[in-house]
Amino acid sequence: VQWPPKSELYILRSDGHSCTRETVQPSGNLQFACPSSQQQLLVWKTRPRRVMVLKKLGDELLEEYIDVLRFLGEDLGLSVVVEPHDYAVLSGLCMKWVDTYAEHDLDQLHSFVDFIVCLGGDGLLLHAASLFGPALPPIISFKLGSLGFLTTHNYADYQRHLHNIVYGCRELESCQLVSSDDEMPLRGVHITLRMRLCCEIWRQGGTAPAETFEVLNEVVLSRGANPYLSKIEVYEHDQLITKVQADGVMLATPTGSTAYNVAAGGSMVHPSVPAILLTPICPHSLNFRPVILPDYVELELRISPDARCPAVVQFDGRDGRELQQGDSIRVRMSPNPVPTINNADQTTDWFGAIQRCFQWSERVEQLPID
Amino acid sequence: VQWPPKSELYILRSDGHSCTRETVQPSGNLQFACPSSQQQLLVWKTRPRRVMVLKKLGDELLEEYIDVLRFLGEDLGLSVVVEPHDYAVLSGLCMKWVDTYAEHDLDQLHSFVDFIVCLGGDGLLLHAASLFGPALPPIISFKLGSLGFLTTHNYADYQRHLHNIVYGCRELESCQLVSSDDEMPLRGVHITLRMRLCCEIWRQGGTAPAETFEVLNEVVLSRGANPYLSKIEVYEHDQLITKVQADGVMLATPTGSTAYNVAAGGSMVHPSVPAILLTPICPHSLNFRPVILPDYVELELRISPDARCPAVVQFDGRDGRELQQGDSIRVRMSPNPVPTINNADQTTDWFGAIQRCFQWSERVEQLPID
Amino acid sequence: VQWPPKSELYILRSDGHSCTRETVQPSGNLQFACPSSQQQLLVWKTRPRRVMVLKKLGDELLEEYIDVLRFLGEDLGLSVVVEPHDYAVLSGLCMKWVDTYAEHDLDQLHSFVDFIVCLGGDGLLLHAASLFGPALPPIISFKLGSLGFLTTHNYADYQRHLHNIVYGCRELESCQLVSSDDEMPLRGVHITLRMRLCCEIWRQGGTAPAETFEVLNEVVLSRGANPYLSKIEVYEHDQLITKVQADGVMLATPTGSTAYNVAAGGSMVHPSVPAILLTPICPHSLNFRPVILPDYVELELRISPDARCPAVVQFDGRDGRELQQGDSIRVRMSPNPVPTINNADQTTDWFGAIQRCFQWSERVEQLPID
Amino acid sequence: VQWPPKSELYILRSDGHSCTRETVQPSGNLQFACPSSQQQLLVWKTRPRRVMVLKKLGDELLEEYIDVLRFLGEDLGLSVVVEPHDYAVLSGLCMKWVDTYAEHDLDQLHSFVDFIVCLGGDGLLLHAASLFGPALPPIISFKLGSLGFLTTHNYADYQRHLHNIVYGCRELESCQLVSSDDEMPLRGVHITLRMRLCCEIWRQGGTAPAETFEVLNEVVLSRGANPYLSKIEVYEHDQLITKVQADGVMLATPTGSTAYNVAAGGSMVHPSVPAILLTPICPHSLNFRPVILPDYVELELRISPDARCPAVVQFDGRDGRELQQGDSIRVRMSPNPVPTINNADQTTDWFGAIQRCFQWSERVEQLPID
Repeated sequence: VQWPPKSELYILRSDGHSCTRETVQPSGNLQFACPSSQQQLLVWKTRPRRVMVLKKLGDELLEEYIDVLRFLGEDLGLSVVVEPHDYAVLSGLCMKWVDTYAEHDLDQLHSFVDFIVCLGGDGLLLHAASLFGPALPPIISFKLGSLGFLTTHNYADYQRHLHNIVYGCRELESCQLVSSDDEMPLRGVHITLRMRLCCEIWRQGGTAPAETFEVLNEVVLSRGANPYLSKIEVYEHDQLITKVQADGVMLATPTGSTAYNVAAGGSMVHPSVPAILLTPICPHSLNFRPVILPDYVELELRISPDARCPAVVQFDGRDGRELQQGDSIRVRMSPNPVPTINNADQTTDWFGAIQRCFQWSERVEQLPID
Repeated sequence: VQWPPKSELYILRSDGHSCTRETVQPSGNLQFACPSSQQQLLVWKTRPRRVMVLKKLGDELLEEYIDVLRFLGEDLGLSVVVEPHDYAVLSGLCMKWVDTYAEHDLDQLHSFVDFIVCLGGDGLLLHAASLFGPALPPIISFKLGSLGFLTTHNYADYQRHLHNIVYGCRELESCQLVSSDDEMPLRGVHITLRMRLCCEIWRQGGTAPAETFEVLNEVVLSRGANPYLSKIEVYEHDQLITKVQADGVMLATPTGSTAYNVAAGGSMVHPSVPAILLTPICPHSLNFRPVILPDYVELELRISPDARCPAVVQFDGRDGRELQQGDSIRVRMSPNPVPTINNADQTTDWFGAIQRCFQWSERVEQLPID
Repeated sequence: VQWPPKSELYILRSDGHSCTRETVQPSGNLQFACPSSQQQLLVWKTRPRRVMVLKKLGDELLEEYIDVLRFLGEDLGLSVVVEPHDYAVLSGLCMKWVDTYAEHDLDQLHSFVDFIVCLGGDGLLLHAASLFGPALPPIISFKLGSLGFLTTHNYADYQRHLHNIVYGCRELESCQLVSSDDEMPLRGVHITLRMRLCCEIWRQGGTAPAETFEVLNEVVLSRGANPYLSKIEVYEHDQLITKVQADGVMLATPTGSTAYNVAAGGSMVHPSVPAILLTPICPHSLNFRPVILPDYVELELRISPDARCPAVVQFDGRDGRELQQGDSIRVRMSPNPVPTINNADQTTDWFGAIQRCFQWSERVEQLPID
Repeated sequence: VQWPPKSELYILRSDGHSCTRETVQPSGNLQFACPSSQQQLLVWKTRPRRVMVLKKLGDELLEEYIDVLRFLGEDLGLSVVVEPHDYAVLSGLCMKWVDTYAEHDLDQLHSFVDFIVCLGGDGLLLHAASLFGPALPPIISFKLGSLGFLTTHNYADYQRHLHNIVYGCRELESCQLVSSDDEMPLRGVHITLRMRLCCEIWRQGGTAPAETFEVLNEVVLSRGANPYLSKIEVYEHDQLITKVQADGVMLATPTGSTAYNVAAGGSMVHPSVPAILLTPICPHSLNFRPVILPDYVELELRISPDARCPAVVQFDGRDGRELQQGDSIRVRMSPNPVPTINNADQTTDWFGAIQRCFQWSERVEQLPID
């Protein structure tokens, strides 16, 4: 063949950002340079100095709580922050490295706290997120409450786990990003940055959102106690995608994929997959299968003007609000992740969690077909 | 509060690459800089000059074929390449801009062809992928065969669609990547880079893969016509994840999520989501739900040494091979995408396809509950 | 072999009734004598004389209503009963064969009405059932409202259909039950006797049911608008079967299997199958699959004493009542069927309905796998 | 109201049999007289004298086998029949009450054997069914192999269970069928008469079935190892119901509902429900939901003349046969049940089995939603 070589081309993101994964090789061929998602390490530039410790309400875990506070202060030499109601309990124990804060300082807390230790269940982690708002420091969560997806660390090994966070336990193989003459050696711990959804309630005719919520698991629009099905219009970037007649519709994060989503028949999605799940709840059409959308979608769920009933929206199972005909919620990926420190690594932790919580793919003994 | 500010930190990929999405702000807070996936544009640096046109076998589409060849050569001034067997049919039609190639030049074709036009169904697109191997130019696929997911363009508008590819039809809003004094204006067409899976067959005791395949839809390991269930071990990065007793197990791409995967009960995944789907086929455990994994996983499906039968592996529904006890397939994301040109954009095209092919979420008329 | 013959045996129902289907042959072998369910005919012993005609609320169907009244009175010579509010509309039309009734005669209506004609949708049929209570005459339901499962007859052919009910249209092949010298020839129409469920609300500590309902579709116990899952104990004949944590639990009839049940993931059950469906709604256990139980079960759904919230029970989507911890509903097959006249026969009508309402098993065009 | 009473009517089965469940009351109202299915007792008219004992192949259970043979002969005074290959093993043990049979007497065995004892798993029970053909005596099956649905009796209590079969353990409350002056008191054991399906293979153009099989679990028509989907036409009483494009289609009994059917997504059906299950395997239409049909249906699954491949039919997972385009299988309820003796009663045994085999509705610990 004696033809001229083919033309050169760009692959560009339509919003002008660079396409980091998709590359055009010198030969002009298209390639993926690397996976778009990957295991991540948290590496301290300077040693962390202040840690916040949260405890489930009640006196049940008081002993473990005090052990952890002592280890953090005496062994690791850290300053510790606790919630005011917990601080009261500690008076007389003479732990001078423990401090608390005033309510009006709550919104500056994120500037001073290097990481958070949770002693409780998944609910306590949601509480931590609500304390800090958008700028949430890394969290380590110990299994001390009911079975949870996010409480990956055994309390029995708490000293090793806490030491690992401060000093790191995994060497970075190679890194072109960080110069080796830094003060700290390049050791870190695996961390998962969990996506949240930013949800706005829009009232019909309004020009601004009436309220805004961030959810870690899911936002659900449903008929609640109304006798009739919700009639919900689904838009993506203001384009009508479908009309749904169902008990409800859910938008979930990968983290939430193993919560209510799995009860509604959705698939389980690893938290490293950058995606938003659209899952119907008891749809009255046989062919409304769950769909999994990229993280750049901007979705709107609107109560159809001809719906027979209002609907109810819930954020992570709480904060129920009624929506009237014509009202809607707008949902997009939040820029503010929930960073959770891993036990082993992201994949091992996740498969462990779905086996622990669902006996995923397990069976006492296999039934022979014949 | 009069505390010192918190420590600075890095978020690093454990393989040393940069974390392009996850950023540490000057304040030390963690944020997602942008969605990890995004709409993409194909923008030519220099005008394309050579196009390949593929046609479904048989004379059925001969008229449309010749119309397209004429338009490409006479109106758009492009050189056209066709397959040898099609070239024979054109003799006497005096289209001097049409050329063909010798079999032994097949592996250089990718260096000369700017884009590909398919007149047929989804099967023809798979044929194009097999002609070119890893380095596949962008493809536009016209709906002229049976209903398909990938044939997004109406033939009736072929002139407009082909003109748009060459000259672009969407302005890039802003771009810090490409200087504006380039020869070409910054106009392009939406394009989807579809992930493929790289699949290796490993025979027990072997030190290298026995065979390698790339699939666009899915790889399936199943019992085939054997009376007994497959007993399959699933590994991720050499770590045992689960043992499955089922008719089979499938690993699918997002593109393949709407093919065999949906028949097996899997969710539909948008092709911009960088993920690999692990879907069981008729599992004998009630709690083996489909899971969706990040694109960095490296999976191995191994026939359990104590399986009662061998198994069969198929690649995109073809190339069946028998696997004995201890044999396995190793699967990871391929660096070589299948680039398909969009009609509207990625999201509109995809929702259109699932409605066209599955009547997704539609119902003739809603049944009132009472 | 020179052995003595085996012993004789009985197969008896444990409640002392005869086993009509299961027989012991003279040889001592066990056999099913016949299917337990079968196509049924309605055959009049004496010609029917009085028919009730029900119409959907509003004036929309007034013209069809009057046409039907005229045909029944003038052509078929029947007396017609209508609801009082419809009777008022007819004044001045001089149809002397039309009569109405006083409210206090409502509970005797079933002694005088031979059959019922419904002009409307499935909702009107439920209204008819509520008018008559337990003793419901056969109903013919014309498709004049929204799409329904029970409205099997086309209005266009109303004269033929109504004639067929009165005079019969299908000869009985042979019958050992009815002597041939009866006044009427043995012709009839196919009829389906649809099972209802008898549902009692029991308040904790009560010695008698607080309320009783009969449902044609389903009874649903759910969390309603409560934020927490229902925790429901399921008993059969006072024996604990399972504890369920879910959005709710439904008990449905075969008729109801294609209503809410199918939205919750249940199977479609033909109305001739004598069964009760136990279907979870969004269960939080992956392995709570729907189960289909025989019609002799006596089920109780009890709100667990340690449930975090009360629950809501609904009967055919209406009559919501709140249940507190310890309250329960007891459900068993009702002796009072809803008899609906068939268009063709039971199986043809049913497959027709699931195709009409769900496009069951249909697809615009099949997607080739490759 | 001063109207004449309504007309009298019959409800007749269209095949001339009586309608045993549906009754017309003297008032003319329709009622169900009783549930159509019910718990059943096996009651001996004369004491059983001869029992057959089957054992799983191999020496593994030899000790238990001999214990059972001794108890039956010495304690219960029964004659025992064993298979010839087992008889050989017993020589020298001097159990004179044990006998065997010649191969050519196999088809008379059912006339002499009062009941069968199985020591093994579900597979052994299928073996018993194949030994006896249509006229199968009642079977008691002890749990001594892998986990099974039909092996309901614990071996530890074998003496009590075997005594109960011979002497009965449950009094019949009242019975209008059996006079009380019979030789035997009215005591029995619960028994389940399990439906089988009679399946005929019809070759295109044939005038008689090519082969006939009886299945206890299911008959499956599938693509086997063929690359293309099966295209299967489904007929009921020679009327086309639907065309299916799928990996396969299954017809299952209620007994089989918890075997392959549940893996394909079907519901679990109690064995007292007289029904036949039509379940698709990986259908390529989103709205082909499983359906449950009455026991009087006569189904035909025909390979479509325009199918791209032949198909494979399997009976209880065995006896694979290839079907060409135009060939079909015809399936209806068999008159010959498989009678299995219950441990507790039908409902307790069944819920026990689905919990034992599937952990139905169980979960280690419930995950709180928040």
